[in-house]
Amino acid sequence: MVNKVRFLSQKRFFLIFIIIAVYLLYSLAFAAGSEGVSGGTDESHGGPVEIVLLELIVILLTAKLGGDLFERFKQPAVLGELVFGMVIGNLNLLGFNGFEVFKTDVTLEILAELGVIILLFEVGLESSVKEMMKVGLESFMVAVFGVIAPFFLGWWVSAMFLPQESIYVHIFIGATLTATSVGITARVLKDLGKLKTQEAKVILGAAVIDDILGLVILAVVTGIISAVETGQGGISSLGVLWIIAKAVLFIVGAVVIGGFVLPHYFKFAVHLKGKGVFLSFCLLVGFFLSYLAGKVGLAPIVGAFAAGMILEEVQYKQFQEKGEHPIQELIEPIAIFMVPIFFVRMGMLVDLTTFARVEILGFALVLTLVAIIGKQACSLAIFDKKTDRLSIGLGMIPRGEVGLIFAAIGSKIILDGELMISPSTYSAVVIMVILTTLVTPPFLKVALLRKDRKKK
Amino acid sequence: MVNKVRFLSQKRFFLIFIIIAVYLLYSLAFAAGSEGVSGGTDESHGGPVEIVLLELIVILLTAKLGGDLFERFKQPAVLGELVFGMVIGNLNLLGFNGFEVFKTDVTLEILAELGVIILLFEVGLESSVKEMMKVGLESFMVAVFGVIAPFFLGWWVSAMFLPQESIYVHIFIGATLTATSVGITARVLKDLGKLKTQEAKVILGAAVIDDILGLVILAVVTGIISAVETGQGGISSLGVLWIIAKAVLFIVGAVVIGGFVLPHYFKFAVHLKGKGVFLSFCLLVGFFLSYLAGKVGLAPIVGAFAAGMILEEVQYKQFQEKGEHPIQELIEPIAIFMVPIFFVRMGMLVDLTTFARVEILGFALVLTLVAIIGKQACSLAIFDKKTDRLSIGLGMIPRGEVGLIFAAIGSKIILDGELMISPSTYSAVVIMVILTTLVTPPFLKVALLRKDRKKK
Repeated sequence: MVNKVRFLSQKRFFLIFIIIAVYLLYSLAFAAGSEGVSGGTDESHGGPVEIVLLELIVILLTAKLGGDLFERFKQPAVLGELVFGMVIGNLNLLGFNGFEVFKTDVTLEILAELGVIILLFEVGLESSVKEMMKVGLESFMVAVFGVIAPFFLGWWVSAMFLPQESIYVHIFIGATLTATSVGITARVLKDLGKLKTQEAKVILGAAVIDDILGLVILAVVTGIISAVETGQGGISSLGVLWIIAKAVLFIVGAVVIGGFVLPHYFKFAVHLKGKGVFLSFCLLVGFFLSYLAGKVGLAPIVGAFAAGMILEEVQYKQFQEKGEHPIQELIEPIAIFMVPIFFVRMGMLVDLTTFARVEILGFALVLTLVAIIGKQACSLAIFDKKTDRLSIGLGMIPRGEVGLIFAAIGSKIILDGELMISPSTYSAVVIMVILTTLVTPPFLKVALLRKDRKKK
Repeated sequence: MVNKVRFLSQKRFFLIFIIIAVYLLYSLAFAAGSEGVSGGTDESHGGPVEIVLLELIVILLTAKLGGDLFERFKQPAVLGELVFGMVIGNLNLLGFNGFEVFKTDVTLEILAELGVIILLFEVGLESSVKEMMKVGLESFMVAVFGVIAPFFLGWWVSAMFLPQESIYVHIFIGATLTATSVGITARVLKDLGKLKTQEAKVILGAAVIDDILGLVILAVVTGIISAVETGQGGISSLGVLWIIAKAVLFIVGAVVIGGFVLPHYFKFAVHLKGKGVFLSFCLLVGFFLSYLAGKVGLAPIVGAFAAGMILEEVQYKQFQEKGEHPIQELIEPIAIFMVPIFFVRMGMLVDLTTFARVEILGFALVLTLVAIIGKQACSLAIFDKKTDRLSIGLGMIPRGEVGLIFAAIGSKIILDGELMISPSTYSAVVIMVILTTLVTPPFLKVALLRKDRKKK
């Protein structure tokens, strides 16, 4: 039986391989055609939308084939999207450059961003303010522990590996390890149907607080460094307070004002004629809070999550009475279309040649190790015995765009006539981000399902 | 009773007005804030996605409020989206420039294009190859009549109004009047639930053939003119044949190859693990044929329509048996999100100052008139007495991007040392496109519903 299953999955794998090969050749043929053959008639239609269509075709197909293969090996679909994205994103190493344009296309980048905004909105819809309040203190402690431990571990590793660098470099590298990127974890929780668990709520709450802490750290660290550089006072404590105040005001404001305004908002909307009013007005809440979050310096996905969280059925029960489908059901097709764009593109952006740089590999691997170990400090903040500590620690592992943005800012700061974050240090941070992203889905899956087994 | 309804609708209108005013001020405040206040912390997140979020917020809100207001006055929602789009797109005339960026944002343009692709895919899903075959000859005749009559009428009007210009200018202007832009009509048919009628099938079939004819005309006309210009032989009859062959091969290929391949395609897909496989594989068909249509020089929306048309339930019944929702239901939320982007943006691009140019207004209005009258020749191709001739003629009226593309190409050709299509002639074509777009929804609605009344 086992053998038969294996044989089938090999056959299937072969079929998938053939299909990928065919579609690559196809895309290649068309990519070549677009520059040469078509000529004059091309003016009549098309244009940039064709490039995006090709990108969407390749990405959707990659996502579904990658997701399928990894689910066959009992891995979360999101890991398949990342890894298959990595494969097609690095085909240039084999001389195929047809997908290079995907990496720089701004429209695709924005579609990917909208994808992860839709994902976090969808995830937020599964949580309510009440539920999040209950885990508020726990989330806060998890976030704080998960910021402090990696920060000092990163500082220490940097001091070990780069003894010649100044203390500011070590502080900066410590800072790059602090912020959790919740997209991957949210997706794994969703794929496994675990969004309603205590662990999911703690992690999601902690991710929101994490993002606020990340903002503060960035402000403080760059403030200190610019103070050193210019010899003047850097960022004032008032400035830091204002950053914190804006972020906290946003979250509290979304909950309080949202709770007050939304019933009236939907009461107004329910009287509007035309199709799709309900979904449009829910999307408007999501987009508006994402936009606002961006404006106060938070990640737009934090706003999207907050929007999903504050939307409660009681606010729009009139729409349900009119026979509208639940918002969770309406948002799903949009998520199916757009979410994979984010993860496949994220995989595509991984440059495998970074791993070939032996001289930084040691530093990068140790940095990754402390990034992973550091977040396990989160589990120390859990006092409730029913909550699974391991899942929380693992769920907080992924670092994403925030770490990269920190490193990118550092790579622009010149300290004592040298770049504070050198290109090789930057590569080490990139490797850390890639590895923390890739290790989370399989480990988190095991941890979450292990808890299920224990229950039985 | 009537008075009470009117009062309520005035009150509602006032409320809508207040809301629009508030959100304009809001956007304005944030637009100002984004340049000034936020400063350093902005680096941590956000970026171009924020601009697109703001655009989506404004567009979705505009679409829903415009649609609501026009439905209250018994007009199709799409007209409200166009008109409200026109209003916010021309606020710069009142000194408000906050929305100017919307007009040039490439990402928004592509989202709009994807929106109309999704719309035509959705519309195609309501048609089957079998049904379209039945109306094939009728559609063909409608398309041919609807190309010939406006072409010669346009030629004649141009010769009347621009006697100093050469015959080639008149031919070119005639050509700009030929191609129907089916987006508006498809949307009106959909809004009224008329996609399954005989008239809808004839119009949609004719629009596909129209697009092929448009390609041929563009090739022939530019060929003749370049022959005149360079003194050499222009486009060969072989060249024209190749253009026709590519387009016809695309349509026939989609139907024949699609009919053969799709059952196997879905049989493969049904075995894939992971969520959203069915919707993804349907979208892949839509995007792939849209892309391919663009590649052979047709409008991507023709490919999207073809894709929707060739997808039949029998090909994917295994998915339905697994409990998947029908594809029509899955595509709807995506359409609710993306379709209005196309129509609101289309309205925004209307430059009202064009209408203030008195010297061209006469020519523009007569051009519009013959554009409308010319398409009524379509009804002469209808021999079936059960089909409503008036609806067909009205449904073929809208001219869109094809006319504008023709004019844009003409405005680059230099003939006898002068621009073939002068800026003022170009403006006249723009006015023709705007007016044919705006008059269609109300008239088509009356015509289609008049038929209903007759039946009763």
